[in-house]
Amino acid sequence: MKTLYTSETPKLIGKDVTLQGWVWTIRDHKKVVFIDLTDRSGIVQVVGGPDLAKLSVEDVIEVKGLVKKRPDHLTNDKIPTGAIEIEAHDIKVLSRSEPLPFDISKDEIDVTLPTLLDFRSLSLRHPKVRSIFQIQEVIIDAFRRGLKERGFVEFQSPVIISQTAEGGAEVFEVKYFNYKAFLAQSPQFYKQIMVGVFEKVFTVNKTLRAEPSMTTRHLTEATTLDAEMGFIDSWIDVMDTAEYIIKYIFGQINYACKDILEQHKTTTPKVAKEIPRLKLRKAQQIIFDRTGRDNRNEPDLEPEDEREICKWAIEERQSELVFITHYPVSKRPFYTFEDPNDPGYTLSFDLLGRGIEWLTGGQRIHNLKKIIENAKNRGIDIKKSELYLQAFRYGMPPHGGFSFGSERITMKVLNLDNIREASLFPRDMERIDVHLPTYFKNHETKKENSKTEEK
Amino acid sequence: MKTLYTSETPKLIGKDVTLQGWVWTIRDHKKVVFIDLTDRSGIVQVVGGPDLAKLSVEDVIEVKGLVKKRPDHLTNDKIPTGAIEIEAHDIKVLSRSEPLPFDISKDEIDVTLPTLLDFRSLSLRHPKVRSIFQIQEVIIDAFRRGLKERGFVEFQSPVIISQTAEGGAEVFEVKYFNYKAFLAQSPQFYKQIMVGVFEKVFTVNKTLRAEPSMTTRHLTEATTLDAEMGFIDSWIDVMDTAEYIIKYIFGQINYACKDILEQHKTTTPKVAKEIPRLKLRKAQQIIFDRTGRDNRNEPDLEPEDEREICKWAIEERQSELVFITHYPVSKRPFYTFEDPNDPGYTLSFDLLGRGIEWLTGGQRIHNLKKIIENAKNRGIDIKKSELYLQAFRYGMPPHGGFSFGSERITMKVLNLDNIREASLFPRDMERIDVHLPTYFKNHETKKENSKTEEK
Repeated sequence: MKTLYTSETPKLIGKDVTLQGWVWTIRDHKKVVFIDLTDRSGIVQVVGGPDLAKLSVEDVIEVKGLVKKRPDHLTNDKIPTGAIEIEAHDIKVLSRSEPLPFDISKDEIDVTLPTLLDFRSLSLRHPKVRSIFQIQEVIIDAFRRGLKERGFVEFQSPVIISQTAEGGAEVFEVKYFNYKAFLAQSPQFYKQIMVGVFEKVFTVNKTLRAEPSMTTRHLTEATTLDAEMGFIDSWIDVMDTAEYIIKYIFGQINYACKDILEQHKTTTPKVAKEIPRLKLRKAQQIIFDRTGRDNRNEPDLEPEDEREICKWAIEERQSELVFITHYPVSKRPFYTFEDPNDPGYTLSFDLLGRGIEWLTGGQRIHNLKKIIENAKNRGIDIKKSELYLQAFRYGMPPHGGFSFGSERITMKVLNLDNIREASLFPRDMERIDVHLPTYFKNHETKKENSKTEEK
Repeated sequence: MKTLYTSETPKLIGKDVTLQGWVWTIRDHKKVVFIDLTDRSGIVQVVGGPDLAKLSVEDVIEVKGLVKKRPDHLTNDKIPTGAIEIEAHDIKVLSRSEPLPFDISKDEIDVTLPTLLDFRSLSLRHPKVRSIFQIQEVIIDAFRRGLKERGFVEFQSPVIISQTAEGGAEVFEVKYFNYKAFLAQSPQFYKQIMVGVFEKVFTVNKTLRAEPSMTTRHLTEATTLDAEMGFIDSWIDVMDTAEYIIKYIFGQINYACKDILEQHKTTTPKVAKEIPRLKLRKAQQIIFDRTGRDNRNEPDLEPEDEREICKWAIEERQSELVFITHYPVSKRPFYTFEDPNDPGYTLSFDLLGRGIEWLTGGQRIHNLKKIIENAKNRGIDIKKSELYLQAFRYGMPPHGGFSFGSERITMKVLNLDNIREASLFPRDMERIDVHLPTYFKNHETKKENSKTEEK
């Protein structure tokens, strides 16, 4: 089993080593050939005879050789192993690569996003692309760790559900033996049920939404970070916990991913000691005062409003994140708690940052009658969601929670242009690994061809 | 926000406290009433006046009171808080419960499994039921932690897939806009792709299988623990890692869940210093020698064979776990590596314990041509799995991996009778939260009734 990574070679000058990885670049000087060998830890220069020129980029090889200090005038400050090189004694090819469709050895891959995704198994090997998913796992892990430190318990929420009380049109349908089932758009009902079991819970979960739009910030399949907590004094407890956890996540990123932030020329968002908290109506007034755009009676923020209030938060409160609270009852799900002191508005909040929404949360109704009544008023047949109602039938504490999209956090921390870049294998209306319209067009054509051949 | 748990009260004798939780039992002695208050940490006795008798089991309450030492003759050794009680000053009802369908205050809930599941939101609150999911999260967390310690990187594998190369009939179909898509039965293809990116990877993932059977050990939705590793010297590296991680998991259970193991009157399986490793043919010979049952030419072990070889491992090797290796090529997926020294048999293994399979794994083919050829021989249209082939087209190292079912581990560690007990919200042919045939029968009836009413 591989035991040595290329990044570890500088401390082994004068030692014989065995390295395994992929051929990254080949520089053929005829008598002497240089290759850069890459693995997940970085790259190292290997020097050898003309045989090395027979290798191809992305061939998988094993190199046995001597770690040597390079002459001072030949060191490369741009890579951590730039002061040494491997003098190859023996090279074994473990696996051959075909010619690449594009060059992946530059700092940036110079192709369009669709091409990047069409060649996902290759493009993910690029260090800058790969780093996106290193930081994403730090984010997900920090979410878990930060909540565990506060006594939250993880649980596994189901993907297949039998009813669609929460969603409407944007739900995927599954053929479930002789029944019709659906894919969960969120673990909402289950995390509330679990408050009755573990009081404070979280779940990292695949959520599936049949988003019929092709924006730069929606996916049909996302990894969401959900938390829910019982025995709250008020909805402020929930917002405080959301603030704690996003700061905890930033802390972990800054601790573990300095090099990745540098590679992407960015930093984690600057946050105020307390993230500003504004009622929606107040935010709309600020936007009106700043821009003259009068959306003061709208039930939600438009994308340009989100960008404007984020600008305000930076300029006036030195914070790249801002909470917007008190969305109108009509814009929030039926289980959202109405503010007794501000009727018509809910004890709910969104967290915005760098121009878009990161998180949504709030207090939930814990009274069975009120839930049934609210659902009925919205035309939702909540009686179909038997286990959900059951939780309230047998006593539920006051509770609330919140939900992050891990891809949104990744995207905005790294300032990526498109959320598809922040998903390993992004799915949208037109893509499941491959671009579906193209794929089926080609596939149909092939089918017809093969039919012709059969004749 | 709640800050004090019932389990913390014994160290607060003489102090005024505020506790929140559910009413567990009520003992009405007229002038004096005792209630047991429960939360996720345990129970504590509350004593008060006749007002307490108005409460119902599972009411959610807040108790303000004084922690008092009980007289010596009234202590209860069976609970950790049995030496104290809370003298209630003030009780506030946060939420009311309806009468329960069955008693949940006993050591065991005395109802059938279907009833337990029909009332899942309630039955999960029982300490012994709840504990199953505490241990399950310790198992999942240990899987993550143990592999991270060995340099594995976590990744998020998709649920929706476009092709079904791996599965056959047992795959769920999804209506995906204008296309037909499927639910992933395993993260197999994606974890192999990710070996090309991070070399050593793991994923905790929902896997969906349209199991048309109603056994005690199959679910349609499971949380599987998958790992895959590149640059192996041989398949033995993979089996060694599987052995390491299951022992690591047992270590974490023994460290963190002593009380739960006691509650379920069990221990983690006893394992030998090295878990015995037997070729399938050898295992069949042993079974034949021990029982006279001649399955020596069968391509797999029958359930009774699995039980018998587990008995052998305990009796002859003092190990409750045993690896069975070298399943025939025909019984393993097309990507499985054939043993060059034992043609017709694969470099694959299952881990059996306490009578059933816990894990399956092996080395995979990393040569593109061979994969395409094998798939073709099995009638699999692998060219549809474009990203999978792409990984091999651009150089893949020798690699292998394994897959556990978290519910299987939970079930067998706790000696549960049915795997449904080891899934929070188990799904099978006939159940998604509710029992589907019953539900739809009632629902249809209601529909007809409402039609009648409309007339």
